[in-house]
Amino acid sequence: MSLRRTLSFAASLAALGMAAVVVNAPASAARADEGMWTFDNFPIQTVNDKYGTRIDQAWLDRVRNAAVRLQGCSASFVSGEGLILTNHHCVISCVQDLSSAQNDYVKNGWMPATREEEKTCPGQTAEVLTDITDVTDRVLGAGAGLEGAAFVAARSAEIDAIQKEACGDDRKLTCQVISFYRGGKYALYKFRKYEDVRLVFAPEFQAAFFGGDPDNFNFPRYALDAAFLRAYEDGKPVATPNHLKWNPNAPVDGEVTFVAGNPGSTSRLLTMSQLERLRDQQIPITLIQGAELRGRLIEYSTIGEEEKRVALDPIFGLENSFKVYYGQQGALTDPAFMAKKRQEEAELRQRVAADPAVAERIGDPWADLEKVQATARDLYLPYRQLEANAGGGSTLYSYARAIVRASKERAKPVAERRAGYADSDIAALGRRLASDAPIPVGVEEIQLSHWMLKTREYLTVDSADVKTMLGAESPEVIAARLSQSRLIDPAFRAEALAMTPEQLAASGDPMIAFVLANDDAAQAVRTQWDAGVNAPTARAAEKVAQARFAVYGENQYPDATFSLRLSYGQVKGWTYRGVTVPSFTHMGGLYERATGAEPFNAAERFLAAQDRINKDVVYDFVSTNDIIGGNSGSPVINAKGEVIGAAFDGNIHSLGGSFGYDGELNRTVSVSTAAVTEALRNVYDQPRLLRELGVRR
Amino acid sequence: MSLRRTLSFAASLAALGMAAVVVNAPASAARADEGMWTFDNFPIQTVNDKYGTRIDQAWLDRVRNAAVRLQGCSASFVSGEGLILTNHHCVISCVQDLSSAQNDYVKNGWMPATREEEKTCPGQTAEVLTDITDVTDRVLGAGAGLEGAAFVAARSAEIDAIQKEACGDDRKLTCQVISFYRGGKYALYKFRKYEDVRLVFAPEFQAAFFGGDPDNFNFPRYALDAAFLRAYEDGKPVATPNHLKWNPNAPVDGEVTFVAGNPGSTSRLLTMSQLERLRDQQIPITLIQGAELRGRLIEYSTIGEEEKRVALDPIFGLENSFKVYYGQQGALTDPAFMAKKRQEEAELRQRVAADPAVAERIGDPWADLEKVQATARDLYLPYRQLEANAGGGSTLYSYARAIVRASKERAKPVAERRAGYADSDIAALGRRLASDAPIPVGVEEIQLSHWMLKTREYLTVDSADVKTMLGAESPEVIAARLSQSRLIDPAFRAEALAMTPEQLAASGDPMIAFVLANDDAAQAVRTQWDAGVNAPTARAAEKVAQARFAVYGENQYPDATFSLRLSYGQVKGWTYRGVTVPSFTHMGGLYERATGAEPFNAAERFLAAQDRINKDVVYDFVSTNDIIGGNSGSPVINAKGEVIGAAFDGNIHSLGGSFGYDGELNRTVSVSTAAVTEALRNVYDQPRLLRELGVRR
Repeated sequence: MSLRRTLSFAASLAALGMAAVVVNAPASAARADEGMWTFDNFPIQTVNDKYGTRIDQAWLDRVRNAAVRLQGCSASFVSGEGLILTNHHCVISCVQDLSSAQNDYVKNGWMPATREEEKTCPGQTAEVLTDITDVTDRVLGAGAGLEGAAFVAARSAEIDAIQKEACGDDRKLTCQVISFYRGGKYALYKFRKYEDVRLVFAPEFQAAFFGGDPDNFNFPRYALDAAFLRAYEDGKPVATPNHLKWNPNAPVDGEVTFVAGNPGSTSRLLTMSQLERLRDQQIPITLIQGAELRGRLIEYSTIGEEEKRVALDPIFGLENSFKVYYGQQGALTDPAFMAKKRQEEAELRQRVAADPAVAERIGDPWADLEKVQATARDLYLPYRQLEANAGGGSTLYSYARAIVRASKERAKPVAERRAGYADSDIAALGRRLASDAPIPVGVEEIQLSHWMLKTREYLTVDSADVKTMLGAESPEVIAARLSQSRLIDPAFRAEALAMTPEQLAASGDPMIAFVLANDDAAQAVRTQWDAGVNAPTARAAEKVAQARFAVYGENQYPDATFSLRLSYGQVKGWTYRGVTVPSFTHMGGLYERATGAEPFNAAERFLAAQDRINKDVVYDFVSTNDIIGGNSGSPVINAKGEVIGAAFDGNIHSLGGSFGYDGELNRTVSVSTAAVTEALRNVYDQPRLLRELGVRR
Repeated sequence: MSLRRTLSFAASLAALGMAAVVVNAPASAARADEGMWTFDNFPIQTVNDKYGTRIDQAWLDRVRNAAVRLQGCSASFVSGEGLILTNHHCVISCVQDLSSAQNDYVKNGWMPATREEEKTCPGQTAEVLTDITDVTDRVLGAGAGLEGAAFVAARSAEIDAIQKEACGDDRKLTCQVISFYRGGKYALYKFRKYEDVRLVFAPEFQAAFFGGDPDNFNFPRYALDAAFLRAYEDGKPVATPNHLKWNPNAPVDGEVTFVAGNPGSTSRLLTMSQLERLRDQQIPITLIQGAELRGRLIEYSTIGEEEKRVALDPIFGLENSFKVYYGQQGALTDPAFMAKKRQEEAELRQRVAADPAVAERIGDPWADLEKVQATARDLYLPYRQLEANAGGGSTLYSYARAIVRASKERAKPVAERRAGYADSDIAALGRRLASDAPIPVGVEEIQLSHWMLKTREYLTVDSADVKTMLGAESPEVIAARLSQSRLIDPAFRAEALAMTPEQLAASGDPMIAFVLANDDAAQAVRTQWDAGVNAPTARAAEKVAQARFAVYGENQYPDATFSLRLSYGQVKGWTYRGVTVPSFTHMGGLYERATGAEPFNAAERFLAAQDRINKDVVYDFVSTNDIIGGNSGSPVINAKGEVIGAAFDGNIHSLGGSFGYDGELNRTVSVSTAAVTEALRNVYDQPRLLRELGVRR
């Protein structure tokens, strides 16, 4: 329920240049099962020695070919006909998009009788990693000798060029240059991409999310957080011979587990000054503003059934990311955790200082980063309110901004456009804008008014940018008008995307007019942030990375960057403050925990199946794998390379995993293939799927 | 708008034993205008030397006799017939209580034509300090040799006894033992008390609160945050010959200003470990939960006009306290501020260590307090959710809890009752319960469901206390039932207060049943908190106070404890980051700032008076006085002892004043008597009041 990538924060960390190199075991012995390893640097020998497995490169290649990246989530092929296993919470937006007030598939589940009734998920894609190419020299060369915004622009342009050269405008490919080891390495990741991904099966929301927000990031759990998609191309299911074999048997305690997926973002090697600014400013603001918006949406959802239905997905996302940040803040305000971080940094700096040659080459990037934090403290609020978090989650706002910026860039000669605005990019934007996912106007209005109210509160009413934004009107009045934008209609979005800035200005659409009026301020603060924060952070972070390489050598995994990784571990519970939590739950436990009151009411079909279901089947389980948001839906794989579960959550201790892994406490939470099989058989009666998975009915 | 005492937090700080001694100028020269001085230790000579005034004890006595303490606010007598000047925001709850859907005096103002139409404010009192008696020896003697909860209980009982001896059951007196200098001194403050306080005049809400939450704690301001009450006894206005003379002329730049009032709570001498726990745990939780409740109430207020009307006062209080805590957190996360605090603590500890006799006597209370913080971190969440913040602001809940606890204590022999539950206390409770202030059920339901949702979230669904609280129901369902309690009816409250615990259990009232079921857990956590946090904090804090006396001598003022203080200063603007803010605004400026959109719409009668009003009259002004929440409504007094304004706010820099005063930046914001006079004359046409104030029409 929780490991969906928290996009806004991941994006903001990325904007801070915070993707860091992580060093395994700087001084201590083998550090438990830590690490989100790239497929080209997996510690094969370590794992085989520790767990008696026989992993080799061919095994890794098979897993890589079956691993699927979704929008913000992970997944895997589990049949030869493009069938994809992921989490329910990775498809809930799609289920909601396909629903209406009359047909609420979120509540009732989505389970068409035939393949012909599988329906396309608006905006969803499936990507399979096919090639990795080192492009470090080209990227680093592009920034050489430049500073500030020019440095950022040059790097962006070169990355854009590399991607274009490799993939051109081929819509069946994705080419993405990804930073590893905090700029120590850049690699071009090439993916086979499928743009028609259809919803095959989703259980009832209450089966997938039993226990709701209170149980989220906790264990024991009783959640069927699983769903199936299918990749199509040219109207037909894609042939996927490299799929993982479905193993319907539950794992046993201590069994080795591999998790292949796309952890979104970790920040394990931020310096103390960076961590302290996160703790003192960025995370608190995120929590406080998120809490107020959460309150507004919760209250809105009490108005009636339809309001409750349309607010479900936004509340769901907000509560999940709230819990993530709250857990991160817990680590940053834990005196013991911070003392350890402080000690690690002091040790590294001492060892650098002790070697004159290294000290000469590295300089003092820690001091540089401390200076950057002063700038970031000053710029963060305007950067957040006017640019990074502008619109407050409003879909209409994000559409309008994308259209306005595309129009402005298209008016320039190709060579002068900002990165990401080639004609092919704008065409891709057009396809995204064609989504017919419904946009709930009431939720839009709340998001917009909340955003403008907080912008006025945090930047003050006397800020020139706030005056431009609000004029003589109130945020509430403006939000009511903007949420009536014609951009709710895909046809108008297509028209608007073809317009010049002048035509947009003349369109009379309130949201477009609003974005046009405020875009200069937003772009100005982005430029300031690039020059004053991103560029010097990237420079200094590279130096810190080099220092770690010099001191600790090559046995390292890079921080998460929503790129394919493999984690190893084993099925194992944990003990905290004298309480031991076992590694499994069983399906029968659901009926014991269910009180009947939301969110602890069992799903209707589970209640109806109570006598049929095998209560001894393992439901959810925990393992020591090191994962994080973005890993949602990742296949859990046994030593033979078979899928035995889908990772969907971490325990509460895993939330500090953004900043450090604790093998004693951090746990991955997965739903077992055994439970999915049992549910398909005895709750949802899906012989079609069971056959495709190779399971006897 | 803002300096109303933030009760919940002040109470929680008090519960932490955080009233601290503050030392003036420990090492540096005269420290600007810092200090909230008691009337028996005012630095007369310092002020006379600095400002050329001729203050003496007689001057101080006159001011003290005219100073009035209200519920959570300050005020002063300004006529011989019991007329009281305070802030509009100190009477807004009363105005709301007197209003209905048909007659909205909040919106339209309250301005009866005759004295006979002045109406009693439910629950309001007016208290004038008459005697101060040192009782330090008795209080300290009572705790001697005891530890933990026994220590807390013995002190409470002795304090209760002292109060009873001095005031008996006389309803015209209040006797209160107040801690000063963090337990270095205890004094009995005896007040003349008036229980019939009537509303005389309140301007339109939009005149008093122009600029709303965005302008709150900011300056320049254009707010008529003033109102008049009148003290009655036996149905007649009280004779108050010792009133302050009303001076209708505005002060000039640099003029000396005194502010007499009741600052609620400061924490200027907390140790670093205490400040860090506030920063890392207590204030963030308060902000986050407050923000979500704020969002719910804001959304609720969009449903319709009546919802907006009844939610106004709760939102108002919530936003004000939110801004206070946010400002406090700003100080605690300001690296420079914390570095200064750390340095001050290190210096004190060094000087203690350098004197063997002092070191021997003091020991290491800083280390003791650090240990207490570990306990406080573990206990704070249950203490907050089950006891300190239980009910989430619900009036019905607070009534039920008071009734249940009174009933339980009354069942005990008098000698065994907890402090605060003598028969006279229970009688006083009965009078408070008789209030006929309306209780908006919709707001109650939100406060209750929010509180239970957060209790489940923060204590987890698996906590035994949460299981007792919720059973098999959802917070929403329980809140809906509880808000239907018959305690909404004052007659039923009177009946219930007379019941035994068994009769209460049999009453069938849902709220009473709920409190009965959960009160043991609440009292248990309070006992733990008393024993594990309050008692050892009090012990250690006394030691820190003694250390400061030993090192820095007697030139000190105590931390604020909502007791009468006098602050001195002068009318003066400030400069921050190169921007200079002048010390005055003028009434004409209102019309320039007004956009017409809430909350920047000028009040209707101000708009109607635009041609009549003298636009050159000074509206609001700032001065260097050192004040804090609780000082709202305090008279601003000139050297001659005349009232020239009413303090209603601080500037944004003053919010760090909880932890330290910065003479360069901290400012008090007041509305001038000149502006009040002009409004009574040319906006609200109140010849009756002008005559009483001795001003020509």
